[in-house]
Amino acid sequence: MTLLVVGSVAIDNIQTPTARRDDVLGGSAVHFSFGASFFAPVQMVGVVGNDWPDEHTKLFQKHGIDTEGLEIVSNGQTFRWTGKYLENMNDRETLDVQLNVLGDFQPKLPEAYRRAQYVFIGNGAPSTGLKTIEQLQGADLIVADTMDLWINIARPDLDALLTKIDGLVLNDSEAKMLTGERCTVTAAKKILTMGPKFVVVKKGEHGSMFVSQYEIYVVPAFPTESVVDPTGAGDSFAGGMMGYFASQGKLDAETIKAALAYGTVTASFQIEGFGADRLLEIKREDIDRRLEQLRNIAF
Amino acid sequence: MTLLVVGSVAIDNIQTPTARRDDVLGGSAVHFSFGASFFAPVQMVGVVGNDWPDEHTKLFQKHGIDTEGLEIVSNGQTFRWTGKYLENMNDRETLDVQLNVLGDFQPKLPEAYRRAQYVFIGNGAPSTGLKTIEQLQGADLIVADTMDLWINIARPDLDALLTKIDGLVLNDSEAKMLTGERCTVTAAKKILTMGPKFVVVKKGEHGSMFVSQYEIYVVPAFPTESVVDPTGAGDSFAGGMMGYFASQGKLDAETIKAALAYGTVTASFQIEGFGADRLLEIKREDIDRRLEQLRNIAF
Repeated sequence: MTLLVVGSVAIDNIQTPTARRDDVLGGSAVHFSFGASFFAPVQMVGVVGNDWPDEHTKLFQKHGIDTEGLEIVSNGQTFRWTGKYLENMNDRETLDVQLNVLGDFQPKLPEAYRRAQYVFIGNGAPSTGLKTIEQLQGADLIVADTMDLWINIARPDLDALLTKIDGLVLNDSEAKMLTGERCTVTAAKKILTMGPKFVVVKKGEHGSMFVSQYEIYVVPAFPTESVVDPTGAGDSFAGGMMGYFASQGKLDAETIKAALAYGTVTASFQIEGFGADRLLEIKREDIDRRLEQLRNIAF
Repeated sequence: MTLLVVGSVAIDNIQTPTARRDDVLGGSAVHFSFGASFFAPVQMVGVVGNDWPDEHTKLFQKHGIDTEGLEIVSNGQTFRWTGKYLENMNDRETLDVQLNVLGDFQPKLPEAYRRAQYVFIGNGAPSTGLKTIEQLQGADLIVADTMDLWINIARPDLDALLTKIDGLVLNDSEAKMLTGERCTVTAAKKILTMGPKFVVVKKGEHGSMFVSQYEIYVVPAFPTESVVDPTGAGDSFAGGMMGYFASQGKLDAETIKAALAYGTVTASFQIEGFGADRLLEIKREDIDRRLEQLRNIAF
């Protein structure tokens, strides 16, 4: 089934302890879409400016990503983010943000997108998610991502968004921040009282956890030693997970565990290159091969 | 098969954010032994003073723990540790240490212990481990635990110990400290070059990882919300793991994964009470039931 995503489309400048790359294709909707594209056709909703290279649009289309929902604002510039990863490659500093056209982004869903069954609200202002959901006609599964920034500066919108989604994806530290709880499981369960029917907690190298009222599933991360650039790891995780859900059309225990596993495997490729470089090199069979390896190493 | 452990035997005073308990039976050999006792007969090597309550010795014996190797020094006092857990229940401060008879501990293995096939060197001065290993006659599997303290103050002894053991158990932060590596898998692989054939990395709530030259296995922690006292979590994890190894007499992939899983389940009970209180309440079938739950929630 088709999977709709709304989120940021960006041009990033990325510094790691050992390298630097400028003008890297990035953004939550982008990394999500490439991750999901191995599993399902994707409809992307986002906004860019007049500096947007047409090659990027062609790259999306080459990977089965529908760009009818990618708005190009002729008198504006694309969102730009500059960040620096610290020695441990987990912590990062944002050095510069130029919101540009993303600042006034009003998502407009093309007619064909409004009947999407699987929907992902990528990381971005919660108000964008709310405006997207208003335009949907009976989606089966709406999942949103969020981050510390929105918990801190857009809590009322985030609270409203939580009442309109089926699932929330966030980091363990963010789950604790959102709820004031110090235990991950307790935090996830408290989020269930705020609206979502399930929570997926991303724990980076420690894997991920799915929590609903009656279920908990835990999936380890694919152990990797070659982290080149962590940018978009969480977005590509969500892409792999939602792409697999969309391809299966059900949410039973085995599907949920496999979706989280496909998410971590997709993210394990993502971080092996700058931006989406590595995901653009691989094929679905590479993902399936690594999933089998994960099955062998997991309990 | 019988499992020998050498380590500390202590009387602890423990503070948590919500409670305080004094004169709690503790120590690495103690928490290991109770954890292991569900799976295999245990021989305990340790030292206590003239303040040692005979009830504790009887409690060991009641749980199938052989105390012939528990030395009682008539003119000394038992090792005492006082610690305080911070709000997050992961970080702790040591408020007071009285080494007492542990300071001059010279492990002496009773004749019947020297032919032990499965041996665990519990957390303690690496020199104690070295002196224990000298007295062994052809053990099948020798595994040691260590911690940041010994990495910092007893590195030459620790390096010597590493060349004489089959496996090392330690925390992820300690693996990074020992090797100077920032990636857990890379750190574990570097430890393999220092002597051990395998490394078990404990990651607390994030589970554990087994790394050998050709194998990696990852087992999630049993998700728990009711942490009363984390003291001895690592020791009881090692006890469950080594106890299961001793009960199976082999080290194939399935046995290794199950051993780590039994370790995490044993530790999940340990932290539900002060000291060993909770482990002393439960039965093997409680552990097996929780292991099945872990199988259902894991990928």
